[in-house]
Amino acid sequence: MVTRHMKKLINEPSAVVDEMLDGMVAAHPDEVRRLEDSNVLVRRDAPVEGKVAVVSGGGSGHEPTHAGYLGPGMLDGAAAGEVFTSPTADEVSEMVQACDGGEGVLMVIKNYEGDVMNFETAGELAEMESDVDVAKVVVNDDVAVEDSLYTSGRRGVCGTIFVHKVAGAMADEGGDLDDVQRVAQKVIDNVATMGTALTSCITPEKGEPTFDLGEDEIELGIGIHGEPGVERVEMMSADEITERLTENVLDDLDPDEGAEVATIVNGMGGTPLSELYIVNRKLQSMLDDRGLETWDAWVGDYMTSLDMQGCSVTVLVLDDELKELLAHPVETPALTVT
Amino acid sequence: MVTRHMKKLINEPSAVVDEMLDGMVAAHPDEVRRLEDSNVLVRRDAPVEGKVAVVSGGGSGHEPTHAGYLGPGMLDGAAAGEVFTSPTADEVSEMVQACDGGEGVLMVIKNYEGDVMNFETAGELAEMESDVDVAKVVVNDDVAVEDSLYTSGRRGVCGTIFVHKVAGAMADEGGDLDDVQRVAQKVIDNVATMGTALTSCITPEKGEPTFDLGEDEIELGIGIHGEPGVERVEMMSADEITERLTENVLDDLDPDEGAEVATIVNGMGGTPLSELYIVNRKLQSMLDDRGLETWDAWVGDYMTSLDMQGCSVTVLVLDDELKELLAHPVETPALTVT
Repeated sequence: MVTRHMKKLINEPSAVVDEMLDGMVAAHPDEVRRLEDSNVLVRRDAPVEGKVAVVSGGGSGHEPTHAGYLGPGMLDGAAAGEVFTSPTADEVSEMVQACDGGEGVLMVIKNYEGDVMNFETAGELAEMESDVDVAKVVVNDDVAVEDSLYTSGRRGVCGTIFVHKVAGAMADEGGDLDDVQRVAQKVIDNVATMGTALTSCITPEKGEPTFDLGEDEIELGIGIHGEPGVERVEMMSADEITERLTENVLDDLDPDEGAEVATIVNGMGGTPLSELYIVNRKLQSMLDDRGLETWDAWVGDYMTSLDMQGCSVTVLVLDDELKELLAHPVETPALTVT
Repeated sequence: MVTRHMKKLINEPSAVVDEMLDGMVAAHPDEVRRLEDSNVLVRRDAPVEGKVAVVSGGGSGHEPTHAGYLGPGMLDGAAAGEVFTSPTADEVSEMVQACDGGEGVLMVIKNYEGDVMNFETAGELAEMESDVDVAKVVVNDDVAVEDSLYTSGRRGVCGTIFVHKVAGAMADEGGDLDDVQRVAQKVIDNVATMGTALTSCITPEKGEPTFDLGEDEIELGIGIHGEPGVERVEMMSADEITERLTENVLDDLDPDEGAEVATIVNGMGGTPLSELYIVNRKLQSMLDDRGLETWDAWVGDYMTSLDMQGCSVTVLVLDDELKELLAHPVETPALTVT
């Protein structure tokens, strides 16, 4: 058994989220600000009057998710819970109210029981306290499992980034709350993801791996919270891993031949970019073989799981509206589209 | 002793660079292209007529360096050697000639003996074969060691990214070869970096760590090629590590009180963004205490060392010209400034 020990650039484990958020604001003081006594970050200029706000959040440990996507054309607010722990309903409600510019707020929720419950409660609180219109979508793009440790139904993982991008663009273009919710749901209906772990992550508080993996073993179908996957297999080549992930994703989506897609090869936090490019090479070759046309391919760390080594593959089947919204300019700490 | 085993998303170890470059072109087909039978990537539209070209390169394993910085406002060409191995003089010469738009080519070289020798030979070859004007600068920003395993004098590390940015901006603004070389040298004269490793990296060919570190040990003053550092110390907190790195960097630069600086907290490849933000928090607090003013702060993986866990701290002391050139718009796979 490979024993991984905790070696992290942190101070007190209990201070990780607080200090990480401060360090992020210190890096992007013109773009984001932190609400007082809160783990909520918002666009520096929030609330933006006359625009629907798009907010998200969830447990920490997935950086640059969520606050990395704050900015014009994407998110207005991001609530950070402790590592792998939902933010409280009070903080989410505070975020919703701080971001409302009079046209309502869309909450983008990843499908975990804690997140869904706290965001729903927060939406009700915000509606009661300040008469804001609140709508929600629940992202469930992980094709690996139907139910998991933390979910009823499929988990929300890296496909969430496309939901943020598309909803944020529609809001920026002046869409009303129904429009913004509709396009967010369109992404959810057309996106699928599956991931693999070469190593477990190590949480700061626990200080040891959340699951054990042998030297020559990997997990297929992992989530982003240190859950083990659905299948433990012997170490395979990058091409074989990419085939397994991509076949499951495409079987779920079943796109028509000739369909245009956007893809993400997402690093889990401890895997270098060079390896993600090797995965992207095989992914694009498989899509080509299937007669699919890649309209845009993203490669990088978009939704991580602390220091886990591994990756996920996301495919979104596009139409003209989604292409236009993905191409809409955005400027955030983690993503810039010009 | 902690034993780390090779778990990588790769196929044949000998194919890593070739497949990684293909995967990068597949992700950015409108931005970069690969020269035939070569590990050189260039801007899609190279050569750009009437503009000085800026080229760089070196061993692979530092992604997104070098090809991630190809594009308008930054690099015209990037030559990739095998992992931690200099590209050949022939490939570099081919790159110089492919990128020359008639106004000459600046080669940005990191100070390693193999790189310096091969780039210098390449420059002479290119001048003989196609009468191109070639100039060079040698980056040596690592304050940790005076001489190292691979260098006479200081090593070139993450400060190189600022050299690419500033030289590329001056070329994009229409500067001549002397101007471009002058501002590149100005960055080199005003930038300093120091790094730390929590774990060794593992090279694909060797498949095991390049140095051994105990469970509770870290290395200070590491390079980017799996060299051990200059000092092995017990694991410290993020704040203590940041203090050690930053104090060495500032002692070297000795900036005047009130000076404006740009900073990079750079991840070594296996360290998640959340930890880099925690380092940035302390760095910015230290700069503030010293009466320095941060004009721009970058946090992310800019120049990595495969899957090494750790980070480096870079500080560049600015003047008005450098600020203007850093702010110049750039659009590359790894860096966008609008």
